Amino acid sequence: MRATIVTVGNELLSGRTVDTNFTFLARALGAAGVRVHRHVTAGDERAAILAAVRGALLDSDLVLISGGLGPTADDVTRDAMAELAGVELVADPAAAARIAARLASLGRKQTAVGNRQALLPADMAQLANPIGLAPGLWHETETAIVCALPGVPRELMAMTSEVLVPRLRARHPDLAPLPVAVLRTIGVPESEIAERIETAGLDLAGVALAYLPGPGGVELRITGPEPAAGPAAERAADAIAARLGAAVYARGEESMEEVVGRLLSMRGLTLALAESCTGGLVGFRVTRVAGSSAYFAGGVIAYANEAKTALLGVSPALLTAHGAVSAEVAAAMAAGARARFGAALGIAVTGIAGPGGGTPEKPVGLIFIAAAGPAAGAAVTERHLLLGDRQQIRERAATHALDLARRSLLDPAART
Amino acid sequence: MRATIVTVGNELLSGRTVDTNFTFLARALGAAGVRVHRHVTAGDERAAILAAVRGALLDSDLVLISGGLGPTADDVTRDAMAELAGVELVADPAAAARIAARLASLGRKQTAVGNRQALLPADMAQLANPIGLAPGLWHETETAIVCALPGVPRELMAMTSEVLVPRLRARHPDLAPLPVAVLRTIGVPESEIAERIETAGLDLAGVALAYLPGPGGVELRITGPEPAAGPAAERAADAIAARLGAAVYARGEESMEEVVGRLLSMRGLTLALAESCTGGLVGFRVTRVAGSSAYFAGGVIAYANEAKTALLGVSPALLTAHGAVSAEVAAAMAAGARARFGAALGIAVTGIAGPGGGTPEKPVGLIFIAAAGPAAGAAVTERHLLLGDRQQIRERAATHALDLARRSLLDPAART
Repeated sequence: MRATIVTVGNELLSGRTVDTNFTFLARALGAAGVRVHRHVTAGDERAAILAAVRGALLDSDLVLISGGLGPTADDVTRDAMAELAGVELVADPAAAARIAARLASLGRKQTAVGNRQALLPADMAQLANPIGLAPGLWHETETAIVCALPGVPRELMAMTSEVLVPRLRARHPDLAPLPVAVLRTIGVPESEIAERIETAGLDLAGVALAYLPGPGGVELRITGPEPAAGPAAERAADAIAARLGAAVYARGEESMEEVVGRLLSMRGLTLALAESCTGGLVGFRVTRVAGSSAYFAGGVIAYANEAKTALLGVSPALLTAHGAVSAEVAAAMAAGARARFGAALGIAVTGIAGPGGGTPEKPVGLIFIAAAGPAAGAAVTERHLLLGDRQQIRERAATHALDLARRSLLDPAART
Repeated sequence: MRATIVTVGNELLSGRTVDTNFTFLARALGAAGVRVHRHVTAGDERAAILAAVRGALLDSDLVLISGGLGPTADDVTRDAMAELAGVELVADPAAAARIAARLASLGRKQTAVGNRQALLPADMAQLANPIGLAPGLWHETETAIVCALPGVPRELMAMTSEVLVPRLRARHPDLAPLPVAVLRTIGVPESEIAERIETAGLDLAGVALAYLPGPGGVELRITGPEPAAGPAAERAADAIAARLGAAVYARGEESMEEVVGRLLSMRGLTLALAESCTGGLVGFRVTRVAGSSAYFAGGVIAYANEAKTALLGVSPALLTAHGAVSAEVAAAMAAGARARFGAALGIAVTGIAGPGGGTPEKPVGLIFIAAAGPAAGAAVTERHLLLGDRQQIRERAATHALDLARRSLLDPAART
């Protein structure tokens, strides 16, 4: 099954909004075994949407449209679907009733604007929207399915997994994805990973190996050539993982914060944070994981030096002697967080994210991270010099801090 | 001038790589006055690239291709350009010499793989690549320009600003962007904003109004119909802003955290945070702004109840009486953050982000936010019931917390 995805919106074409809906749909369809072979972004114009759909119908089995089903005048996907099917838009009593009931349950009144969402192509099949007001639309031509889903991301996500994919599977019971084994690495550049794999004499015949470098490290994706090739992909991933050792932090699509959470849970330990340049990002990432309250005690965002002293007990003398961006202060911050929150493991990060504040001795991108506990003895500190702009440096600093937590929890010497 | 952007790469179609090249090109062309009216993502196949380009030539003055000019076998944009022009790929001595010189300066040897980059469509104009090995390609049909640029982001960026845009301007001296006025709103649903605007009898003739709902509120973009229509767009924005009142937090593309930072700087005040369910996100957003150390003292991520008591001075009796998710605890957290950090304004957020932890009385999505200071008197608290999954609830809670900071700083009663 070959699919074209059409995402609709002037805000996408202007580059003002990053098209996360496309990314989501491409992954969801790929995981269901549908091959996405083209993506078109069209503006909020009926003719532009129609042209994209008609072009896609030449070589696609599925045309999936996202967006343009909302209540405002620039939402014209309904109009395009009606023209495609050669029917009129008519007020749909059932849709109107659902909208009225939904609005009533929210304590809002029906408005003329909202009512536009009940104008639907005559006799066209609808897909239930479990969490929003606009139903999806489903139209079949002689050769293809044309499906329109709302562009509100959470509605799109819910409808894709709960309605669209089950419906595609019911229609095409043989849909199956190519097997993919994933390894996530940190701390080793892409070229060195490639070198290590290529010089290892591994037998990777029949699988495709892709390198995806990102701010959190390099992800390796090993894809089998056919749906039944799962074991071959897994064997290849095993061989590569053995070659790369501790640089691999996850087998599969586990995030670094999920790995850290799993290690903390397994060992019954708690975590506390002390963040300076990351400003709360490490805590935000740790608490992305549902259930993190079981092992995350809390953190201090110690942006000002006074806060490092008052809330983390970092001595003013230490700050004066070494500066806030130093291994010594990082270690004191980690120990302070551990003590103040009564946690088993304290992790700290301090650095210069820029664009200002750098010096020849302490340039922008210099960060220190530290771990205190769970092993006895002094805190572990690390120095990294990170590339990128302010946000990239902060993202990378947070990843290194989480990775230090991971390695601290793996370290046999640290086992309690 | 109407443009179609074609980005090339299987990694884009799979949704594994977010297409930042498109976002960059759309913004750069828009700023130069080129209207991007379609975006197509094609896989690494000559036929797919050609189909996208030929479709675009039907209604575009410029077709801009990014990617597929590299040295490996899956880089086939050169082949597609040659077929489009009806010429052969030939070894280009000048390009080969440039590649050899570049490799020599890097201390690398010429390889057969690298040499592919010197195979170029016969007699096709080239665009110099100031920082990479692959030149761009420039082909003119009777009606349009077809230009191919490398997909390596920093090469693409450099060639766009240094080569492509100057060349387009030289060819079309009347190129000028359409004027856009931006209003950012928070706290009012899209449908209600539309209703308020549509029932106000505003004269919006001649401008285009787009609604961009997002997790941070609804952005309104008012676009003038021609380069000289800037005053008309601004007048329309003035009229809409007057109608929407305090729901408008920014005129222009200022973020909520930039608005809060500007208000703090203007008034010479400092901010401290106490975060529970947002886990550090509010602090992360505040510190996204370069220079935020001037007004941001720091924050406490008080995830566990013990942390709320130990680090923010929230009394255990208060926690027992009202629960951690309550207006009373939010107020105590805000006051505690203000006091512990010695800041003028303390902002707190506590809530249930889910998926677990909800009860009939305190469901998932319930959050309380509080502001302490800068006015005298008790803290201000607000209750919100937010929709979405864990991450969306956290994003929205952070935005409401920042907005409460904004309104606290705007409040005349709060002026020191």
